[in-house]
Amino acid sequence: MTQREYALAGQTTEEMRIVSEEERMPLADLIRALQSGEIALVKNIRRSIKPLAVGKGLRTKVNVNLGTSEHASNMEFELEKMRLSIRYKADAIMDLSTGGDINAIRRRILAESAVALGTVPLYQIAHDTVKSGRKMHEMTINDILRVIREQAEEGVDFMTLHCGITKETLKHYQRSNRQGGIVSRGGGILLEWIAVNRQENPLYEHYDEILDILREYDVTISIGDGMRPGCLKDATDRCQVGELLLLGELTERAWAKGVQVMIEGPGHIPLNEVTANMLLEKKLCKGAPFYVLGPLVVDIAPGYDHITGAIGGAVAASSGADFLCYVTPAEHLRLPSLEDVKEGLIAFRIAAHAADIAKGIPGAIEQDHAISLRRKAMDWPGQFEFAIDKEKCLEYRADTTENGIEACTMCGSFCPMKKDTAVKTALEEFNLGA
Amino acid sequence: MTQREYALAGQTTEEMRIVSEEERMPLADLIRALQSGEIALVKNIRRSIKPLAVGKGLRTKVNVNLGTSEHASNMEFELEKMRLSIRYKADAIMDLSTGGDINAIRRRILAESAVALGTVPLYQIAHDTVKSGRKMHEMTINDILRVIREQAEEGVDFMTLHCGITKETLKHYQRSNRQGGIVSRGGGILLEWIAVNRQENPLYEHYDEILDILREYDVTISIGDGMRPGCLKDATDRCQVGELLLLGELTERAWAKGVQVMIEGPGHIPLNEVTANMLLEKKLCKGAPFYVLGPLVVDIAPGYDHITGAIGGAVAASSGADFLCYVTPAEHLRLPSLEDVKEGLIAFRIAAHAADIAKGIPGAIEQDHAISLRRKAMDWPGQFEFAIDKEKCLEYRADTTENGIEACTMCGSFCPMKKDTAVKTALEEFNLGA
Repeated sequence: MTQREYALAGQTTEEMRIVSEEERMPLADLIRALQSGEIALVKNIRRSIKPLAVGKGLRTKVNVNLGTSEHASNMEFELEKMRLSIRYKADAIMDLSTGGDINAIRRRILAESAVALGTVPLYQIAHDTVKSGRKMHEMTINDILRVIREQAEEGVDFMTLHCGITKETLKHYQRSNRQGGIVSRGGGILLEWIAVNRQENPLYEHYDEILDILREYDVTISIGDGMRPGCLKDATDRCQVGELLLLGELTERAWAKGVQVMIEGPGHIPLNEVTANMLLEKKLCKGAPFYVLGPLVVDIAPGYDHITGAIGGAVAASSGADFLCYVTPAEHLRLPSLEDVKEGLIAFRIAAHAADIAKGIPGAIEQDHAISLRRKAMDWPGQFEFAIDKEKCLEYRADTTENGIEACTMCGSFCPMKKDTAVKTALEEFNLGA
Repeated sequence: MTQREYALAGQTTEEMRIVSEEERMPLADLIRALQSGEIALVKNIRRSIKPLAVGKGLRTKVNVNLGTSEHASNMEFELEKMRLSIRYKADAIMDLSTGGDINAIRRRILAESAVALGTVPLYQIAHDTVKSGRKMHEMTINDILRVIREQAEEGVDFMTLHCGITKETLKHYQRSNRQGGIVSRGGGILLEWIAVNRQENPLYEHYDEILDILREYDVTISIGDGMRPGCLKDATDRCQVGELLLLGELTERAWAKGVQVMIEGPGHIPLNEVTANMLLEKKLCKGAPFYVLGPLVVDIAPGYDHITGAIGGAVAASSGADFLCYVTPAEHLRLPSLEDVKEGLIAFRIAAHAADIAKGIPGAIEQDHAISLRRKAMDWPGQFEFAIDKEKCLEYRADTTENGIEACTMCGSFCPMKKDTAVKTALEEFNLGA
């Protein structure tokens, strides 16, 4: 049984108890949200990890993408990224490998990592298809079902499946004048499949069979947005919203089968359209958790898309998004280095935290109060214990000690915090208010 | 005459013509906004620079702070920061030096820089007072007026003056339970002055005399917020809003004397309070341009405050702020390095641009359309010409050429952009829509 099915049956699981306590959400509220589908507890029944809890009223979670490509398939390097991500508190990892021994990489991550793992099974399927001497669009439904089942058996916790790309999508696309075209890899593979084979998307045609497999292992389906906009010009267009309409229907079908659901969302969205996009998803997909990539609020900043994405992500999460997929400085340029992974993850943890404060998530702003109290007391080491990156703080402060004593190079005798003490002393002495 | 006075007299200046053209704002609209005070054209009459145009309907501008402190007073290093800032398109520079030969640094910047320069004259005054063997709170109104006049004569374009800190502020402060206390250096100096001397703030008492000097050189007054919150806990509190009430009165008094005005704003503000803060300033200060520091939307990220500030700055500027003061990764830790200055400036240019797209500023989103068009065409060099940091793009792409040919390590044969072509070809061949 899936966590959704337990909730519907009125049964409390260990996973629910863990999340209820950690997120300070009364168990009854959590169960109600699992029943309605507004919360998903992402965890394959085969894994013994803390569930990834995403949805309404919960702390905003952050995902790290990693993975090889044909041109860069060093498994150890990807495992290093995984370890770094866990060290800097990623809530989930997606292995998006498309090159080298994809099976081996995924299995190593599953064995080593204690956070939820997501995949896009289509990458493995496409890779296997090409390896077997066929063209990508020659993949069959049997290839697809086999890989989904294999990955579910191995313990993958959530899978991105672009089930909402259909012939209808292709019509919208054909009539559109998209500047960025298709930028989803899974979406691209499936649209090519549909267009070349002149048949319906096998993930859509065989949706029920796929759901049966996912249900068996309580794999959460993360319904992919193959038509996500790849530039601001294409944001919130007919292709994107048309697909979202169908994702709403697919959400209800998955729930009816007991399968937990997340919806994936854009992408490149101007800042003034972010909130409307969150509302659209929540309305059309009946409150299903929303998992967004960024969104990136400008196109002009390759090299800094962790920042453009953190801006969009903070606003998105404060207005409905539940789960943020990080973007690194390397986005649009190359595969990320270790430093890129760290920069991207921290930027998105900041965005998620800013949103959690805005949403009033229990325990969020208390962290800020804890650090600012110590900042005011000029307690540098105490402050850094609450900092998102203690190591960077220490490194920045390394140049600023004088004879081993902490010195603040910033203000010296102009320090307003020291003045503050003088002000208070004077006030006490003279009682100016009298 | 000031630009405001010319506008009120119905006269068009060369400065107005330059701004009207560059910002694509009809001259009549610009003049109306100068009359109402909603726009300021910041430029000392002694300088021959392009005016810094801030206010309603204009591109959001970004300021870079630099300057020495007692413990770090290398003038050449600060000049390097200035050159770097201009290279990465800062719209204005504030010299906040408090150590070394402050006069010399400011004069060098005025001589070399082609963007508007702002100062906090109180720093020079406090520095001179201490140098003459007195205590900071022993500065006199004559010291103050002398330095303001000297700096105005030299060509300083805008001055931060904390005229809104009064005995009344001190009462609010005494009754408050602020966690972060006072974090404005100017505010701290003046509150100490008021508290120790038991007299009213000389900048408030002699406001009219100060305005007369500023008017003479068309120095824009940037009315400082000495009570800006220094942590999320203190945001939008009675101290902050109480001061803002008085800043509104001071704005009208400055306008009545023909002086152009900007209002300075916070600071540390939770994301969900940013928009309300923008509204408050616009209402209480009658639409005067709002110049905000960040705002920082979390306290827990020292080392990354350029990102916390970019999130706050983007939301602030999209809901009313006109001018963003950058924050660097070094904020709260040390004085910024050259790299810190660059990182901070670019983060805030991204925030400003995201807001300009949201506000529909003419020419903003067109830059994004230009880059995404070239991205879709896989025109790497063309793309980078429109990037906010071409050098970083080239550096990131350096590892990704194969035999001198651009290779994309990201997706390889999974590239959705290449698939897109396959889809379009298939669609043309089969006309799936029929």
